[in-house]
Amino acid sequence: MAIITLTTDFGTSDGYVGSIKGVIASLAPDANVVDIAHDIPRGDIAHAAWVLATTAHEFPYGSIHVVVVDPGVGGTRREVIIRGDGQWYIGPDNGVFTYVFRPQWDAWAIEDADVRAKHVSKTFHGRDVFARAAAMIARVRSKTLPVDPGFGPAVKLVGTLPWGPRSRGTGRIVHIDRFGNLISDLPPAEAGRSVTVAGQSLAVVGTYEDVAPGQLLAYVGSAATIEIAVRDGRADTRLGVERGAQVLPAAASTPYR
Amino acid sequence: MAIITLTTDFGTSDGYVGSIKGVIASLAPDANVVDIAHDIPRGDIAHAAWVLATTAHEFPYGSIHVVVVDPGVGGTRREVIIRGDGQWYIGPDNGVFTYVFRPQWDAWAIEDADVRAKHVSKTFHGRDVFARAAAMIARVRSKTLPVDPGFGPAVKLVGTLPWGPRSRGTGRIVHIDRFGNLISDLPPAEAGRSVTVAGQSLAVVGTYEDVAPGQLLAYVGSAATIEIAVRDGRADTRLGVERGAQVLPAAASTPYR
Amino acid sequence: MAIITLTTDFGTSDGYVGSIKGVIASLAPDANVVDIAHDIPRGDIAHAAWVLATTAHEFPYGSIHVVVVDPGVGGTRREVIIRGDGQWYIGPDNGVFTYVFRPQWDAWAIEDADVRAKHVSKTFHGRDVFARAAAMIARVRSKTLPVDPGFGPAVKLVGTLPWGPRSRGTGRIVHIDRFGNLISDLPPAEAGRSVTVAGQSLAVVGTYEDVAPGQLLAYVGSAATIEIAVRDGRADTRLGVERGAQVLPAAASTPYR
Repeated sequence: MAIITLTTDFGTSDGYVGSIKGVIASLAPDANVVDIAHDIPRGDIAHAAWVLATTAHEFPYGSIHVVVVDPGVGGTRREVIIRGDGQWYIGPDNGVFTYVFRPQWDAWAIEDADVRAKHVSKTFHGRDVFARAAAMIARVRSKTLPVDPGFGPAVKLVGTLPWGPRSRGTGRIVHIDRFGNLISDLPPAEAGRSVTVAGQSLAVVGTYEDVAPGQLLAYVGSAATIEIAVRDGRADTRLGVERGAQVLPAAASTPYR
Repeated sequence: MAIITLTTDFGTSDGYVGSIKGVIASLAPDANVVDIAHDIPRGDIAHAAWVLATTAHEFPYGSIHVVVVDPGVGGTRREVIIRGDGQWYIGPDNGVFTYVFRPQWDAWAIEDADVRAKHVSKTFHGRDVFARAAAMIARVRSKTLPVDPGFGPAVKLVGTLPWGPRSRGTGRIVHIDRFGNLISDLPPAEAGRSVTVAGQSLAVVGTYEDVAPGQLLAYVGSAATIEIAVRDGRADTRLGVERGAQVLPAAASTPYR
Repeated sequence: MAIITLTTDFGTSDGYVGSIKGVIASLAPDANVVDIAHDIPRGDIAHAAWVLATTAHEFPYGSIHVVVVDPGVGGTRREVIIRGDGQWYIGPDNGVFTYVFRPQWDAWAIEDADVRAKHVSKTFHGRDVFARAAAMIARVRSKTLPVDPGFGPAVKLVGTLPWGPRSRGTGRIVHIDRFGNLISDLPPAEAGRSVTVAGQSLAVVGTYEDVAPGQLLAYVGSAATIEIAVRDGRADTRLGVERGAQVLPAAASTPYR
């Protein structure tokens, strides 16, 4: 029973997620459909990319991950399927796969008329292309499929995020979660014992209870990178910081003289 | 393994959806329960009706669709089960089935004491009536059941929506989605090349990228009807339009003289 | 196929719920994972406790209920597993099990290194401890497991809620739901024919339609306790009442002289 995960910005008040689930249930009745998150902020590709990067690797070999955060639907961006580390990824080539993709992986366009719906709407490729591609992978037993699914030509991904690859010794806020926690891409080994963000220097502590309620703290988060939070509060509003802002080892930002 | 879909206004912070799932898991352990949407606006029957109409037909033969948007629970509206096009529909007769129901279909009241809970609460028929009816259909193999499930007498549906059936050549806004897109019931064939809504005339284009960011557009939506949107914005607030508003072929609203 | 239910405050826009589901899918591929509620207000232990109390008992024998509303994660509160009435409960010992726990039940700490992840993060025990414990119970067939799962020493629960046990003849608002309904712990038998809340005396009626739209009403709710609502409105804002407020039989608050 193949697993198909769904990550979308369709919310939980309309029929878009249900339509996708119906298509999968019709084409691959034995697939196990798993909701990852449907309240990705509208069209927020970077947000979806982070959610995918922190969840997909937890799933078993052969899982199929469908991402539909697709503001350019019907336009020039390509519909793609990717294979890597034993997982399948399906969605628009708009940057959403940036964090998970590795250079040696394979990617293909989804162009085959037998995969796509007979009438493909211009605004809902989640239902008419991506759900169908996922169901077809699931049907032919996702674990034993030859690597090329035969859906279309091999392609190079072109989608990007607003920030490029990280330089050693510097981090950026790459995600702000529901709790207002600021999640960076700075590895603890590069951070050392304290970090600087938005002009504030913060010691790296263990967990929330290591500071008083309402206090800022830095710590090693669940993605094994440096996070900044306010105990029982919100760090995003406290610091007025947005994604892309720098998080630096404190030593780097206040050099010794 | 029968599919039972759930569409409710119970939200995702209380135990109501969980109670329904528990009842189904206890009575029909092999049923495949699928969340359609739980954040239907409170008591918004027309919203739920549209979500049902755009999702149910995607599911395989024998699927069971439970709708619990039920502001009149415990009052005079009837609990019903409907069979049509190989699907089952279960919920209150308050208008929620308006878009899916066809005149030749069958509907029955759910009155049988063996179907309903021993003690039926006056405010939670989702748990005490509808979940149980769905589980019982699932248990006796939804595909082979004789048409009359034997839950109660045949009935005529009486629920209605705020707007009646559509007249040829005129459309109405019947749904406003999470993105603020205005979804009408006007078929493209009747719309022609442009439509008028809220005093604005809009050419029917292909997709969002056919206009500049922030611009209004009309297009053929995923329900195969005319939709109005703002690229990367909200058409509902831009036009100040509510459901029920007219969407007309432009020729009809600006007649030739 | 064991059932694992999930109740969290992780929301539906981040990857936390997805990570938990991935861990379970990897360790117990046949488990049936059921979403109860993921929008519990942040860190609101009492809210989660009520949701658990009104849903868990609906699930079949052998079900496993995971609760991750855990503001003290990584601090001094214990990770626990509980067995009672044929159900398993897994989560932090912070009061979240107050309503379901019975004195004769067993509880154990989750300390075994084979159950916990090799590297346990300090901020995400949902993924690194609780999901894994649930998957391991599911794998060894939840119904036939000897009572002690062998995850750690037997413990006494120490978590509490802001309000203590109820005294006979008095009730408290213990939950406010999505609709603004005020749910008390006062049994109907003690309420009699009317109740007093926030200085208002309200007759206990059958259901919403027994009063006019916009009117306050008291009734026997779906948890078989007294609830206060406004038909088509919100009782919480109308009465300005918070959880913990008293709900008394009207006779008790206005004694006869």
